[in-house]
Amino acid sequence: MSRIITISREFGSGGRAIGQAVAEKLGIPCYDQELIEKIAEESGLSPDFVADESENMPRGLLFSVPIFEDRSYSGFSMQDVLWQAQKKVIVDLAEQGDCVMIGRCADYILKGRQDLIRIFIHASVKKRAEWVMKTYGETKDQAKKHIEEMDLRRRTYYRLYADMKWGASRNYTMTLNSGEIGEEKCVDIICTLY
Amino acid sequence: MSRIITISREFGSGGRAIGQAVAEKLGIPCYDQELIEKIAEESGLSPDFVADESENMPRGLLFSVPIFEDRSYSGFSMQDVLWQAQKKVIVDLAEQGDCVMIGRCADYILKGRQDLIRIFIHASVKKRAEWVMKTYGETKDQAKKHIEEMDLRRRTYYRLYADMKWGASRNYTMTLNSGEIGEEKCVDIICTLY
Repeated sequence: MSRIITISREFGSGGRAIGQAVAEKLGIPCYDQELIEKIAEESGLSPDFVADESENMPRGLLFSVPIFEDRSYSGFSMQDVLWQAQKKVIVDLAEQGDCVMIGRCADYILKGRQDLIRIFIHASVKKRAEWVMKTYGETKDQAKKHIEEMDLRRRTYYRLYADMKWGASRNYTMTLNSGEIGEEKCVDIICTLY
Repeated sequence: MSRIITISREFGSGGRAIGQAVAEKLGIPCYDQELIEKIAEESGLSPDFVADESENMPRGLLFSVPIFEDRSYSGFSMQDVLWQAQKKVIVDLAEQGDCVMIGRCADYILKGRQDLIRIFIHASVKKRAEWVMKTYGETKDQAKKHIEEMDLRRRTYYRLYADMKWGASRNYTMTLNSGEIGEEKCVDIICTLY
């Protein structure tokens, strides 16, 4: 039986890097950018659109206003098309064997599988702001605003599509505060669990 | 610098046994029953009262109705006296060096310490019901009702005293689903973190 590790993460928590390091250490594939490409292929939408519009909820959708219509699927928005493609890609990849999947509600889409290890990585706003300042060269105020906006988008996206409270411990096998534990130790712990 | 591991746990998740095993493996004290005795001594209340009335919120308090008055502390309920004693005992014990503390809002009371490792142990109702049936010889329905009641009590207690959402991942260094991970592996993971 395969084992699938899904990584959900707060923006700026280093969750992506942790997921990639776990996959490397375990010698299994990590689906991150590749997930975007496959979803783009499946849906016929551009990789840029997939990258921007899926997890990072477009502002319009926060208020449940459909902002696009895909004429080829009458009654479905482009977001719905994306979601269907995303589900298909994730379920198919999970069938192919052990892997790490970053984001994209993979935890929710694969829910119920016995071989699922659902991880949530988070950190304090202070720690995440440090990361954003370093990574994007933003000021402290810009970084905090950026985090606030991304948190709202991801939380809304989860509630809308996954009907799940984002970050509630009961939805995960394990949650880790990367700011307290450190990225390297998070990798060790996830590998211990695997 | 010492390191303090606090274990908060859902009723029936095996969190107490995990905490005790962690302490044993690390060769550090585990404060559980001892915490109750020390709080009783500090407050002048009986150990039975402390055990029953503190974490396992009395029914009356769920609706914020004071059920006792301690005449020697005018204006304070016995619960307030208990809370003050609990705070003092936990802060004093934390000063004595590395240890594991089970329950009693120790995570909240010691919040802000750099050496704090805050763990939350949870499991599905199904898994916990199995534990309760085995431990207390209850029927499935009784076990589920018991769990529901204990969850409500602990959640209310946390909200009232710690002003914290019980089980929200952001309040912990790490949360573990003992039903998925297994008690033994939980012990290993916490020891890795320490």
